Amino acid sequence: MKINEIGEFGFIERLKLCFDNLLQGNQVGIGDDCAVLSANEEEDWLVTTDMLMEEVHFLRQSITPEQLGYKSLAVSLSDIAAMGGTPLGSFLSIAIPVDVDVEYLDAFMKGYHHLSEKYHTPLLGGDTTKSLKHIAINVCVIGRCSKGKARKRNMAKVGDIVCVTGCLGDSAGGLKVLLEELPFTKEHEELVLKHHLPEPRLDEGHFLAGFEAVHALMDISDGIASDLVHILKSSGKSAVINVDALPLSEALKKTAELQKWKTLDLAASGGEDYELLMTVDRRALELVQQHFAEHFGKPLYPIGEITEGEARLTWRKGFRMIDFHPSVFNHFKK
Amino acid sequence: MKINEIGEFGFIERLKLCFDNLLQGNQVGIGDDCAVLSANEEEDWLVTTDMLMEEVHFLRQSITPEQLGYKSLAVSLSDIAAMGGTPLGSFLSIAIPVDVDVEYLDAFMKGYHHLSEKYHTPLLGGDTTKSLKHIAINVCVIGRCSKGKARKRNMAKVGDIVCVTGCLGDSAGGLKVLLEELPFTKEHEELVLKHHLPEPRLDEGHFLAGFEAVHALMDISDGIASDLVHILKSSGKSAVINVDALPLSEALKKTAELQKWKTLDLAASGGEDYELLMTVDRRALELVQQHFAEHFGKPLYPIGEITEGEARLTWRKGFRMIDFHPSVFNHFKK
Repeated sequence: MKINEIGEFGFIERLKLCFDNLLQGNQVGIGDDCAVLSANEEEDWLVTTDMLMEEVHFLRQSITPEQLGYKSLAVSLSDIAAMGGTPLGSFLSIAIPVDVDVEYLDAFMKGYHHLSEKYHTPLLGGDTTKSLKHIAINVCVIGRCSKGKARKRNMAKVGDIVCVTGCLGDSAGGLKVLLEELPFTKEHEELVLKHHLPEPRLDEGHFLAGFEAVHALMDISDGIASDLVHILKSSGKSAVINVDALPLSEALKKTAELQKWKTLDLAASGGEDYELLMTVDRRALELVQQHFAEHFGKPLYPIGEITEGEARLTWRKGFRMIDFHPSVFNHFKK
Repeated sequence: MKINEIGEFGFIERLKLCFDNLLQGNQVGIGDDCAVLSANEEEDWLVTTDMLMEEVHFLRQSITPEQLGYKSLAVSLSDIAAMGGTPLGSFLSIAIPVDVDVEYLDAFMKGYHHLSEKYHTPLLGGDTTKSLKHIAINVCVIGRCSKGKARKRNMAKVGDIVCVTGCLGDSAGGLKVLLEELPFTKEHEELVLKHHLPEPRLDEGHFLAGFEAVHALMDISDGIASDLVHILKSSGKSAVINVDALPLSEALKKTAELQKWKTLDLAASGGEDYELLMTVDRRALELVQQHFAEHFGKPLYPIGEITEGEARLTWRKGFRMIDFHPSVFNHFKK
């Protein structure tokens, strides 16, 4: 059987079943943004690991080594943000083809260091090795959060409002600019930068996890059409999302209009935005929104709500239900 | 500048300098088998990460998927053993080319699960993604040890006896059997199995770390000619090793004689034996050896001693100093 027949999540499901019997105590293993381990009486520790492969996740000629170093760490820091945690340190494994020179690696590490410094995350170890052809990168980040306060995907409740921390689809738009080799206008450059230099929402995640009313929390790596379904499956709930409420940047709207892109497809299933996706108790929504806006000078966007039912994601446009089927991301699909 | 001009360890040295300023509290970062983090008042936690690349670390046609799954975990568990720790859980990232089928992955996970179960190490998370050509694997393992008891490379003292837990060079011999496509005799098969299914010395590491007299400890991944120099550099000491004392298996001796291999080169710089290498207070050596032999039913092998001086490794044969220069392993050397 080919791997694309069961897909990435099919394979992960098999792994989860196979290893659940080895879990000890209150360990949380496979199936969330991070594993959760009880480190001491005040803290849980969070662990996440992400792999980036050349020509699958990035093209060496499109992304500068500095941007690649930054992004390699950013995607794992984003998983710590997705649990409401704070990073403790990172571990970098990198497989290097012989045609990569030291200057390239120095630039890579400059970008990695920049983000490490910004979020006080030391590089604590790793592995370097040779690769025959492609650069392979794996970053593991360890973080911490207050005992029992990690925000998991299974915490959504019926009636919760689904919110996101920022614009959706920019990163996917940036990727399209690169793949379609569009000229670097101001808007195109803005989208490409969102694709290459995503900001891990650590401050936002930590802030939001301070509210009891913020229930399920995760980061948007594959697009909400795919990511929200993880929350729905874990929580045993359904959701209705209003496509009119999806926050879109001016750069994406303008470019999509000119290039005749399907904006909603990009926003719903584009992936790699690394904004946070959460469900908030509707009675506290206004309060959370107000505090968030005061603290960060930007809004928290409500985009839909959690409903009864088993993991069904439906879409409306204003008050009208619509037949919308954004393509769902799958690494193993051709 | 090409990466092979500074080598793997040159690159790691650059990283260490670049990130040391971000270390917090008593974190131990780059430069040992594991990073050491203070988890609570009784325990330090250990973190290690290892990357395996197809056609660099393994050949898909030579190793079965089950063996590959086993070995991927074994090399990281060995790093936990090298600190005297006990594993808590593992994280597996795997990049999968489209020509790999589900049956291959199931067999891989069977081997991985076998070792996970043996050492009570649940798989707690990971990442699965597509690869264009080669399988790339990264395993991160978290472990624990009693507070302040992690055995580090910088703990060697002048007069210490250098010991190893088992035979050297078998894994390198097994690799030669594969590369030279020798027929699978009983001895050849024994060597190949040592190469494909190394036993992480977790029980031995944990046991040895119980003795105050066991000072520096590490695992042998690149061969003692390379690995012992890490201990010498970290400790600011030198060492003299007696080549006559290097423990050699009957299978290696017999095969080496028939194939005219340089046995000592294989034993000193072959790599991937994953036995433990340590320095022991000479006054307690006999006691440690005796307890070790009673507990494990096999000897602890003394192979040399720690001397004054800056990281110089010299060799003797019996009492005669010899001019011996085993090739030192470097991934980036052609």
